[in-house]
Amino acid sequence: MNRIFRLLLAGLATVLTVGCATSNRQPLPEPLTLSEQGSFFVGGRDIRSEALSSSPNWARTGTITKEQMYVRYQVPARSTKVPITLIHGCCLTGKTWETTPDGRMGWDEYLVRSGHPTYVVDQVSRGRSTADPSAINDAKLGGAANDKIPTLFFASHEAAWAIFRFGPEYPKVFPGMQFPLESIGEFWKQMVMDWNLSLPNPNPNILAISQLSQRLKRTVLVSHSQSGILPFQAAALHPDSVAGIVAIEPGACPATGEPLQPYRGLPILVLWGEFVDASPFWAPRLKQCREFVAAANRAGAQAELVMLSDVGFAGASHMLMQDRNSLEIARWLDSWLDKRVSP
Amino acid sequence: MNRIFRLLLAGLATVLTVGCATSNRQPLPEPLTLSEQGSFFVGGRDIRSEALSSSPNWARTGTITKEQMYVRYQVPARSTKVPITLIHGCCLTGKTWETTPDGRMGWDEYLVRSGHPTYVVDQVSRGRSTADPSAINDAKLGGAANDKIPTLFFASHEAAWAIFRFGPEYPKVFPGMQFPLESIGEFWKQMVMDWNLSLPNPNPNILAISQLSQRLKRTVLVSHSQSGILPFQAAALHPDSVAGIVAIEPGACPATGEPLQPYRGLPILVLWGEFVDASPFWAPRLKQCREFVAAANRAGAQAELVMLSDVGFAGASHMLMQDRNSLEIARWLDSWLDKRVSP
Repeated sequence: MNRIFRLLLAGLATVLTVGCATSNRQPLPEPLTLSEQGSFFVGGRDIRSEALSSSPNWARTGTITKEQMYVRYQVPARSTKVPITLIHGCCLTGKTWETTPDGRMGWDEYLVRSGHPTYVVDQVSRGRSTADPSAINDAKLGGAANDKIPTLFFASHEAAWAIFRFGPEYPKVFPGMQFPLESIGEFWKQMVMDWNLSLPNPNPNILAISQLSQRLKRTVLVSHSQSGILPFQAAALHPDSVAGIVAIEPGACPATGEPLQPYRGLPILVLWGEFVDASPFWAPRLKQCREFVAAANRAGAQAELVMLSDVGFAGASHMLMQDRNSLEIARWLDSWLDKRVSP
Repeated sequence: MNRIFRLLLAGLATVLTVGCATSNRQPLPEPLTLSEQGSFFVGGRDIRSEALSSSPNWARTGTITKEQMYVRYQVPARSTKVPITLIHGCCLTGKTWETTPDGRMGWDEYLVRSGHPTYVVDQVSRGRSTADPSAINDAKLGGAANDKIPTLFFASHEAAWAIFRFGPEYPKVFPGMQFPLESIGEFWKQMVMDWNLSLPNPNPNILAISQLSQRLKRTVLVSHSQSGILPFQAAALHPDSVAGIVAIEPGACPATGEPLQPYRGLPILVLWGEFVDASPFWAPRLKQCREFVAAANRAGAQAELVMLSDVGFAGASHMLMQDRNSLEIARWLDSWLDKRVSP
């Protein structure tokens, strides 16, 4: 059992023993010491728009910068491990990796405490990475047909419930499912409207992730769900800066017909929770990833597909980085990284 | 000279002496030690919508949560001072207070290092606090007239230039202006499309800020620009939890005709940079705030309006928390808080 996890358990035991916990938030085992933290942007380009505003108080015409990606990072005082980049999924932001809905430590801090410089991004057009209102303003101002309005969506509680595999359908719950549903209200607040279907092709997130990887020299790209394909595409652009890929329940793995050469020698982990076969949405994606892993290995990758239930974690939801046992899963992942990715 | 500032100067002196700086990012004077960090939401309510998506892949009808405010916080290991809440302004997010465009430490970290638990928010409908696409989707789907589309805007580089008082008009520069214009490209990436003109009345940010203040028991609310009026409105809702208000170049101060009773005994600082009289946008706002400060003091407040040029800081822009001397201004502010706000 590694040091940080032992300390966390000790902290938890203390709380349980003295019985003074007033919320789910556990006291930290020891202070967190950082050599550095901060935030910056990667990617982005300037464009000129004639529809920046539908308010008379702001100019309609001018230059804006868009398609940049916000990155927040922390470097532990004793940084001994490979930098990790955490990339959230659909309808969410970098908040995914922070404090869980029930108030426990997020993977962002766990990984820093374990020795990894850790980078959390907001995908282009979500969170602190802006979207562009020009096409919407054009419709409001009468300059464009409404079919030019971007395709926007917001996953309802009811729809998200099944996609995140809290249960087969809202509000049924899979038996033994590990997501802390007593705090679901805080989770719903994490969800944001999603512009992803309106992004240009190629998706600017690919270039931004590749630029971030090159800036860091070498990083493990950890994706979740909708972002699953992006690290593979970024690695294809610039393989040398990608130290490994961890795809957590990816929306898609690379097609086996695509060139698999960029993944030669690359440690790849495709990680899945439970109840996947019960999900018409996820079951075919698991199958497609199995095919990719086999093909990638034939092409020289070091790819592995792991069902969490096979390594001791029953009941993992699609939001497994927020499940009740999220830090135990993080510890398992950290150990996988120690073994498979050179520091 | 307080300890942290002395250490920062020492770090800077080291860099200058050995001449090894390869960027504007200064090495930290010493590690940052936190007893706790994390993120959560305040506010928010569930609504039912019939226009959540204009994509056939996502359900149109369902429940979403909106009007919540994202809050990220850090508590220093030696926390001796009053908690501070930092509230960004127009067209921006909580990024405002983080690493400056030229790569220096943000006020968020400076204040933590000085001993303040520090809370950084994203206003409702910006950053990690979602907006609601229903009215836009309704127009795209043909269910509503286009005048129901929310009023959205994006401040162009050219328009923002004068509002942020880098100069009288784009691309002229005020002589001695302190914003690090060599890094303006990174600043433009901080800007986001703004939904503020589409928020309901009363503005949900008021309730969210008030809820945050009550959760913290007691906090100093620091606003910037467009957010200037919000802390006053939050204090009117629940005065006991507001330990003080710092309004940095507020878009508006409370009108003198409004009840000023909530501000009795409250330490209030209204802080202004330079070149205000040269700005047709800002000059009347400065005048209005002067009138408010006088009236608030007659009603028993402890209000003060300070021009930074009168206390030794020439050339401050509207983005003074990112100016070249931003940490010296932060030190001055911290000293003001030490004197005026009981811990």
